[in-house]
Amino acid sequence: ALVELEDSPFTNAGTGSNLNLSGEIECDASVMDGKSLHYGAVGAISGIKNPILVANRLLMEAQKGKLSAGRIPPCFLVGQGAQDWAVSHGIPPCPSEKMATKFSLSAYKRNKRKMELAEKMDVGHNEAKRRRQSSGNENGSGCLDTVGAVVVDLEGNVAAAVSSGGLAMKHPGRVGQAAHYGCGCWAENANDMISYSTAVSTSGCGEHLIRTMLARECSSAMQSEDAHQALLEAMQNKFISSPFLASEDRVLGGVIVLRCCRCVEAQPSQNIQGLLVEFLWSHTTESMCVGYMSAQDSKAKVWSSLLRVIHRGDIDINLHFLSDVLCGGMCKLSSLFSHLSQP
Amino acid sequence: ALVELEDSPFTNAGTGSNLNLSGEIECDASVMDGKSLHYGAVGAISGIKNPILVANRLLMEAQKGKLSAGRIPPCFLVGQGAQDWAVSHGIPPCPSEKMATKFSLSAYKRNKRKMELAEKMDVGHNEAKRRRQSSGNENGSGCLDTVGAVVVDLEGNVAAAVSSGGLAMKHPGRVGQAAHYGCGCWAENANDMISYSTAVSTSGCGEHLIRTMLARECSSAMQSEDAHQALLEAMQNKFISSPFLASEDRVLGGVIVLRCCRCVEAQPSQNIQGLLVEFLWSHTTESMCVGYMSAQDSKAKVWSSLLRVIHRGDIDINLHFLSDVLCGGMCKLSSLFSHLSQP
Repeated sequence: ALVELEDSPFTNAGTGSNLNLSGEIECDASVMDGKSLHYGAVGAISGIKNPILVANRLLMEAQKGKLSAGRIPPCFLVGQGAQDWAVSHGIPPCPSEKMATKFSLSAYKRNKRKMELAEKMDVGHNEAKRRRQSSGNENGSGCLDTVGAVVVDLEGNVAAAVSSGGLAMKHPGRVGQAAHYGCGCWAENANDMISYSTAVSTSGCGEHLIRTMLARECSSAMQSEDAHQALLEAMQNKFISSPFLASEDRVLGGVIVLRCCRCVEAQPSQNIQGLLVEFLWSHTTESMCVGYMSAQDSKAKVWSSLLRVIHRGDIDINLHFLSDVLCGGMCKLSSLFSHLSQP
Repeated sequence: ALVELEDSPFTNAGTGSNLNLSGEIECDASVMDGKSLHYGAVGAISGIKNPILVANRLLMEAQKGKLSAGRIPPCFLVGQGAQDWAVSHGIPPCPSEKMATKFSLSAYKRNKRKMELAEKMDVGHNEAKRRRQSSGNENGSGCLDTVGAVVVDLEGNVAAAVSSGGLAMKHPGRVGQAAHYGCGCWAENANDMISYSTAVSTSGCGEHLIRTMLARECSSAMQSEDAHQALLEAMQNKFISSPFLASEDRVLGGVIVLRCCRCVEAQPSQNIQGLLVEFLWSHTTESMCVGYMSAQDSKAKVWSSLLRVIHRGDIDINLHFLSDVLCGGMCKLSSLFSHLSQP
């Protein structure tokens, strides 16, 4: 299943990432394999074009077992150490200049000005505290460029990945949800205890997603029979009204969820091995791009869909169930997704 | 409650920390406040004497609300960025040389030799893979020097903290459980949904503790009535036999747990405000040092107890309930602990 992850267009997160306070790019990425339940992550990594490849390599190395002298292989590396590890494992470095785009550079300059202005106004004013608490998320859309993927292979093995350049104007060294276990992504195959395999990837404001462990919470919720309802409730109870975010005025996040199980009703003639796959998404943010594809035929013939939901005003949930859009049932969905990670 | 954490002897984790592969000290630390449910953490931080102070400062800053221009304050910083943030917030830098002790330096040299020898033997041998998998945790006791604390104040507010120099000979940039949300520590006050306030701090091999999210799992388990039994089961089902660690030959970890609730039976005459406090610990490691103290009178008169349990052979749980040692009931415990975080 992981081959497909590597081939996904993760460069959107690496190249063109938000710049931090010092004008540098630092990326977070992680990947989880639902079969082995292994996990790999990098945080605040610079100078690597595809941070997700480093996370994936960490996962693969961890699966090989202990290092020399009985040392336990790391699952999470950050900063310069992460970059050095990547290079020593054959992942080429990439100069940061090449990763910044015209768009991210101009956004940096704009944000920097805005911040300096805001700080000037704060100095010596009684309103300082109020401003800190009430000023909205003014740096806007730059906040939410995280990319994620959830995949399932023909055997029903799931995996999830996420990669992010992080918040614009973040402090150097800040690590967001994309590198945080249980927060950025989650994948867990069905076993004796749980009947559905689930894969979740999250996007939004890292601190909100970390403190609610949203990826893992959504994954747990997906064991209910009605996936649609379960996701709605999880977003409401575990995110929007979460006691962990009680002090926040606006809660920003989105998730994509994939769950599957062996299905007796599926027709074996279609060579889909009785795999029932559901794909769901939900978000509190103004918009979220959601795409999906089947790799059934070849890389070039990928079928993809892009949906953009605009929702303004107070926090609300946009929950869309794919079968509504497709006007198809679950088996329709199944035939699409059962080929996702075919090479 | 957090004042007590700062005063705790956390320097054991900062100073004398294990050296990484490059012979440097990089520390992880985190703290969680059960009342606000805020969390602060630093990972792979160098040049700071008390990493826990930085984590605590991150928590306090996050509680103040948004930064200028609506930016969300970070809850997790790593590496150089974390050090810069600390210094800019008035926490003085400390040269790494001063933090390495004679013991940690000699352990580094010994481990380095051992590792080079092991790698020489690996080259060109078929046993390479077997060695990687079977060679035990040869770098020994240096592995488990994490320090943790769980506290409760007179109002029943809980907090937890953990600080660690990490595994000996770890890769630079490796972040262990001590900086990982839900893994190194957890604290959650009682509310409408949960009847016990709980605080947990973990120690052991970071990768095992991360992948099982042991701190949070133990915290959840503590909502059962029989705390002793609940911790035993959590350690068995969520750690030792966890599907997340199925591929590991030896699972290493320990936890300290504090839980409390309002108690109607407690005698108001003792001025303990009807607070019932239980303190438990459990570990799969050969030994774990556990201490507790009451700050009832003054700093100098702290009453502390140190227990060292040696357990060799296969993985087993050592679970000791404090009231056994004390030959006292829960109210005895309560009168001790209700003063823990008095200034």
